[in-house]
Amino acid sequence: MTSVSDDFLYNQVAERLEAMVENGVWKTGDKLPSVRALSEEQGVSLSTAFKAYAALESKGLIEARPKSGYYVRFRPRHAAPPPRTPRLPAPPEGMSVDEMIATVYANLSEAGVVQLSLAAPGYELLPAAKLNKCMVEALRSSPTSCLHYENIQGNTELRQQLARLAFNWGGACTADDVVVTQGCMEALSFCLRSVTRPGDTVAIERPTYFGIFGLLKNLGLRALEVPTDPIIGPDLDFLRNASAKKQFAAALFVPSFNNPLGSLMPDTHKQALVSMLAEQEIPLVEDDIYGEMYFGKTRPRTCKSYDTEGLVLYCSSMSKSLAPGYRIGWCMPGRFRAQVLQCKLTQCITSASPTQAAIARFCTNGRFDLHLRHLRKALHTQCLRYWQAIEAYFPADTRVSQPQGGYVLWLELPESVDSFALYHRARQHQISIAPGRLFSTGGCFRNHLRLGFGNPFTPEIEGSLKTLGKLVRELAKP
Amino acid sequence: MTSVSDDFLYNQVAERLEAMVENGVWKTGDKLPSVRALSEEQGVSLSTAFKAYAALESKGLIEARPKSGYYVRFRPRHAAPPPRTPRLPAPPEGMSVDEMIATVYANLSEAGVVQLSLAAPGYELLPAAKLNKCMVEALRSSPTSCLHYENIQGNTELRQQLARLAFNWGGACTADDVVVTQGCMEALSFCLRSVTRPGDTVAIERPTYFGIFGLLKNLGLRALEVPTDPIIGPDLDFLRNASAKKQFAAALFVPSFNNPLGSLMPDTHKQALVSMLAEQEIPLVEDDIYGEMYFGKTRPRTCKSYDTEGLVLYCSSMSKSLAPGYRIGWCMPGRFRAQVLQCKLTQCITSASPTQAAIARFCTNGRFDLHLRHLRKALHTQCLRYWQAIEAYFPADTRVSQPQGGYVLWLELPESVDSFALYHRARQHQISIAPGRLFSTGGCFRNHLRLGFGNPFTPEIEGSLKTLGKLVRELAKP
Repeated sequence: MTSVSDDFLYNQVAERLEAMVENGVWKTGDKLPSVRALSEEQGVSLSTAFKAYAALESKGLIEARPKSGYYVRFRPRHAAPPPRTPRLPAPPEGMSVDEMIATVYANLSEAGVVQLSLAAPGYELLPAAKLNKCMVEALRSSPTSCLHYENIQGNTELRQQLARLAFNWGGACTADDVVVTQGCMEALSFCLRSVTRPGDTVAIERPTYFGIFGLLKNLGLRALEVPTDPIIGPDLDFLRNASAKKQFAAALFVPSFNNPLGSLMPDTHKQALVSMLAEQEIPLVEDDIYGEMYFGKTRPRTCKSYDTEGLVLYCSSMSKSLAPGYRIGWCMPGRFRAQVLQCKLTQCITSASPTQAAIARFCTNGRFDLHLRHLRKALHTQCLRYWQAIEAYFPADTRVSQPQGGYVLWLELPESVDSFALYHRARQHQISIAPGRLFSTGGCFRNHLRLGFGNPFTPEIEGSLKTLGKLVRELAKP
Repeated sequence: MTSVSDDFLYNQVAERLEAMVENGVWKTGDKLPSVRALSEEQGVSLSTAFKAYAALESKGLIEARPKSGYYVRFRPRHAAPPPRTPRLPAPPEGMSVDEMIATVYANLSEAGVVQLSLAAPGYELLPAAKLNKCMVEALRSSPTSCLHYENIQGNTELRQQLARLAFNWGGACTADDVVVTQGCMEALSFCLRSVTRPGDTVAIERPTYFGIFGLLKNLGLRALEVPTDPIIGPDLDFLRNASAKKQFAAALFVPSFNNPLGSLMPDTHKQALVSMLAEQEIPLVEDDIYGEMYFGKTRPRTCKSYDTEGLVLYCSSMSKSLAPGYRIGWCMPGRFRAQVLQCKLTQCITSASPTQAAIARFCTNGRFDLHLRHLRKALHTQCLRYWQAIEAYFPADTRVSQPQGGYVLWLELPESVDSFALYHRARQHQISIAPGRLFSTGGCFRNHLRLGFGNPFTPEIEGSLKTLGKLVRELAKP
């Protein structure tokens, strides 16, 4: 296992090198200093210099040529424009969004299909053996073998660990502020039910995760889709105007690494959003499910960290970071805790005991923090590798998002390409993708596409991306 | 382990003896034949005769006197009247039902309190070690260590086992008819949401489990409380009249061992109810959570078994029979399967993988059936022992239900006794009970009381019941 200090050192060197590639100091094809030269230049051990190069190689930024040395392989095109979000929705056409979702996600477990339609980690990235061990220990150390009805609010030890996790994003929460739920979706559902009534309107991002449309519909709520920038998130002017006119009763945003955009609201925007909504006493449901999967140096802050009125209902889960199948989510519902607990009690009484106890155990002794460090690195590398393949194989006028975290890339294809038609063609090649129209109720994003990079980059994945690029070229009209 | 044929034989003998005690052939204090004489009379082995007496002794019906033999100890007072259900609700007084529920169930896990307020099994009755083993095997044999998002409808193997279980109550279901949920409450919630809209009225039993009021309220539904007989269940004439007048959009009943009554609708009534509601196209949500906990010879049939139109939405769970803390319930929603699945998808996406896989494994190889046989016997014995203690220690004009299954006794105390006042006095003696007013929205059942017999009968329990009886006498006005 890598020690933390060693980890810091080679990462620091790698980051310095990466910045030089990004800034064009070194260009594609340039030969880099030898390992020995690098070690002397930077005043680090040979082993640290080697590790720094290996890290850059795994990201696809440099390559080792036999008997020659390291060369710059790729320079991220930071100047390439990101995908655009139309200001006005287009009229819907053909199949409904619900029908499309049902089509795309009908056969998730079909063997032999390359899954690029999910926003979730590949199983190789998850600490299965360690978590199994925690489950066994949890069952053995529980006086009832976890057969008891757990505390309605959630396992106390788990809530303490979740409160501790909140310190990373500037949260000053205690175990008593946390309510454990069955995944993030249940947290969103309880929070929305606690702050709205059927018929109310909820402000959401456009584009946004399609599960949120289903949730709103099921609760009898309407959506106000807020134009959302692929880099900095929701349009605050639009929101200021709509909130002043009382056009919505609550907001539900994914401020860090929106799915599908990957956008990250700057801290100043998060702060402005919270105070703007507080002025109108409008509750904000903050979906932070991707918040821990950041590629930068520090954990993004949350809207909740700026909340002084108890009006931000923070939601997250372990489904993207640790154990999708365990269905452990949670919320910190601020002043709406009693309502959320009442929702939970009448919906399901309480959450499962064994899965909560196992994850609580996993989170102690820094195990979860260590796992997250490994996961973030792997995801950042995968993101870059997928991105490079898209740059290489897709038409030049394809726009690709540059997410700073999360699990997905958002693509704008040439205007003539219908991504749902692309979906059907790709399926014939055993590739599954998520067409853009899934991410808006208004028929937007006909030529957009979401690609998940949760699975490690393999020759099979590269082949699938190459095939996809070829299909896009075929569908694009000259 | 007892073989099935042996099990049958000593049970047959015990039942014959029990019938003679019940019919007054033998009276309290009568000496019974010696083990040898019984063995000769009945043509069974000495060991079988001994087991038959031991079974009756464990139920408290007979006692062994040293160096003398077996004597009749107790004759069930089958002629004693059961508690009555008022036709009209009384006006509510003082504290709201919600406040009362919160008061009674605030400190469930408080140490040192004798819990008589629950309708759930004591942990001694549950196969913790075997279930732990199943969990370990499930995690080890899963290619993903159960980290994957499970099939939305539920683990296939588990659904097959649940369909197989349905054969016991005359169900002709396949795995495809089953949707797994987070306990029975979530099943009820999905089913109600699938067949009603906010503002609709739902027919329920009076009295009924208080969790159902919370569920209805949370979904914006109204309750029509149907007077319910403590022996045969809901008043069908009342229902026929109300359904003809379209006074309700759906019904939610607990036809087998209603909580708190313990009532069991006769098969003819179940059949009549299903066809009466089908005529008006009114869906019936059938809560069968206690159906497997029968004391008689055969599993009661369900309303679902008479359903030809797909209008019965059957709901149950493993919380009362196997593992409360695992939160595994299920429904068979008939023609509303698509709606229930949509509810589930938008509420929580899917249910937890490890708990489903562990229980699926436990249900194979007849393990669950064997466990249920043991559990039923233990519960029947506990029911009789609690009942006998109530007969012995409570005032003579106390009415007690005679449940044929389930976990609870329903008591009607002398009219002057307020059972919520009794609750407060009992708490001072470290005893927790469920006052009758929790079981109706209309302020009914002021002098009623629910006592759970899920915990094995011990001297401590007997002492608590004796104390309760004393407190009732103190509260009763002459």
